[in-house]
Amino acid sequence: MPTPFPPNRQVILSSRPKGVPQPEHFTLSSAAVRPPAAGEILMRNHHLSVDPAQRGWANDEGNYSDPVPLGSAMRALAVGEIVESRAPGYAAGDFVYGWFGWQDYCTTTTAAVLRLVAETDLPLTASLGVLGINGLTAHLAFHSLGRPRAGETVLVSTAAGSVGSFVGQLANLAGCRAVGVTGSAEKVAAATTRYGYAQAVDYRASADIAADIAAACPAGIDIFYDNTGGAIGDAARALMNTGGRIIQCGTASIPHWTPPPQGPRSERQVLTKRLSWSGFVIFDHLAAFPATAASLADLIRAGRLTYDEDITAGLENAPAVLAGLYRGENLGKAIVSLV
Amino acid sequence: MPTPFPPNRQVILSSRPKGVPQPEHFTLSSAAVRPPAAGEILMRNHHLSVDPAQRGWANDEGNYSDPVPLGSAMRALAVGEIVESRAPGYAAGDFVYGWFGWQDYCTTTTAAVLRLVAETDLPLTASLGVLGINGLTAHLAFHSLGRPRAGETVLVSTAAGSVGSFVGQLANLAGCRAVGVTGSAEKVAAATTRYGYAQAVDYRASADIAADIAAACPAGIDIFYDNTGGAIGDAARALMNTGGRIIQCGTASIPHWTPPPQGPRSERQVLTKRLSWSGFVIFDHLAAFPATAASLADLIRAGRLTYDEDITAGLENAPAVLAGLYRGENLGKAIVSLV
Repeated sequence: MPTPFPPNRQVILSSRPKGVPQPEHFTLSSAAVRPPAAGEILMRNHHLSVDPAQRGWANDEGNYSDPVPLGSAMRALAVGEIVESRAPGYAAGDFVYGWFGWQDYCTTTTAAVLRLVAETDLPLTASLGVLGINGLTAHLAFHSLGRPRAGETVLVSTAAGSVGSFVGQLANLAGCRAVGVTGSAEKVAAATTRYGYAQAVDYRASADIAADIAAACPAGIDIFYDNTGGAIGDAARALMNTGGRIIQCGTASIPHWTPPPQGPRSERQVLTKRLSWSGFVIFDHLAAFPATAASLADLIRAGRLTYDEDITAGLENAPAVLAGLYRGENLGKAIVSLV
Repeated sequence: MPTPFPPNRQVILSSRPKGVPQPEHFTLSSAAVRPPAAGEILMRNHHLSVDPAQRGWANDEGNYSDPVPLGSAMRALAVGEIVESRAPGYAAGDFVYGWFGWQDYCTTTTAAVLRLVAETDLPLTASLGVLGINGLTAHLAFHSLGRPRAGETVLVSTAAGSVGSFVGQLANLAGCRAVGVTGSAEKVAAATTRYGYAQAVDYRASADIAADIAAACPAGIDIFYDNTGGAIGDAARALMNTGGRIIQCGTASIPHWTPPPQGPRSERQVLTKRLSWSGFVIFDHLAAFPATAASLADLIRAGRLTYDEDITAGLENAPAVLAGLYRGENLGKAIVSLV
């Protein structure tokens, strides 16, 4: 008996980009939906995530994971509904968040599932951002590596970004003073009116980013949540208070690491200020996802945590949304909806 | 009634050095011993510590503490016996380790005392090195920030130094493989035969320090105990394993921090390898001194921890011993004995 599904449309990575992937690096094609084997699920994607990290996956940049093979569906996080399950613990009708790719359907082992979505009272799109790796990253890195105390100053680079927009709010909820660095007047406004920041600096408009950050942090910096590195990071590290914590969560401002880019040495600051500078990669923390997502969901329900989404309809538009990310076009989590 | 003491001889800082203090920056003079006021002790120094950090105290380099005022006894750690006490909890005959300066006698509040010496079965000189800030630094930093696990590789810069000579042994006791970097064939031999190192690299004899460290650490580096910074640090950070810990305990290889010296950026390594890079300053950990010294003393008594001392007799020789430190002349803790 044939499977009762329409063809599975897929956005295929058809050529290897150098730098930011553009629509011409992808093609739209279809394949038959494969029925699940024993231990597998077949799920239908409702919403696709569009993330800066996809640049690294499409390129051959030696990131955390192997590059996406040419000719296969673009690697992506997504959320959707199980339509058929042959895996214990998963049932048709369950909603799942995981590595389902830019396609309509995904037949996969449960190794691709990051989380069963328990918060069915909240919009399903929330599972991609505030309850997905963005919100989970913000919460886990800020609390586990930041160890915030009330009254401390928290500086966040990319304050209006998919992670930074939550760090500001979580810092605020922890009784800290959040200061943001971001890249437009519109993002400064969003940071200070919606994302919990007491103050935000527009680095593109700044003539002296170090002076502007210093002016915004008159009591120094206790926690630096760094998504950019580079000149913003250098300025922030110079302002750290004794015992300060630096969370390295991204290096978005530095395009190439070969040959090694140079910057001011950090050894003396780390030593004399007793800094603790740590790297954070969310996929090390899978076991903490359910409880952390539950905490974030409670904050949303209580009206204490805001999230923004930038939703585009149609699978075929995913490549253009990804290219737009790098032009800073979105405000809020970039999502492509299929339903 | 006059105090029944001979004049208090003192090594006075008489001019401000630039760079390494030399004997001509000091003069020997005497003053009357001052009897203790209420709350004070009067102690007699038995042994004086000579430490690399004294360069910073004699200069005006903006270290952790204010520079030594010209015309006063050189700031130094020392150990000796209380001869008269007007401070509760301290009695004549007690041995104390603390900030007693390069002089025969010290009248001071107990704020200058770092530790009452409990290990009266061990030589009193041990209180300056292995049971003093050197051994305490090695033990506390290695265990609290290094979090060693058996089988891990530990790289230590200044492996034969006053701290590194203990880190190698403690790493070995923790089941780790210790690899040292040091500055002469004699120090390589001491590191590998006496201080617990499986292997040591002579950075002065090396044509390619990064290649030599890599060859000595075929399984990468899990804990980097860094006392030097600079090129050795750059090479080590590039070899860190995922989840590695870097303990910044000194920056001896970098003479000047103004203007900021440049080096390879570290953000990407910290992020992708989930490093934890922390600064350690021993004086943050005073409360842990008694228990940690007791642990170290037990290791000495059990014959599991070796220490070397380089003892010179005579207060008047302290400045020459300090100058010699920077020429790498000593092997073992530099001590000036007065008794």
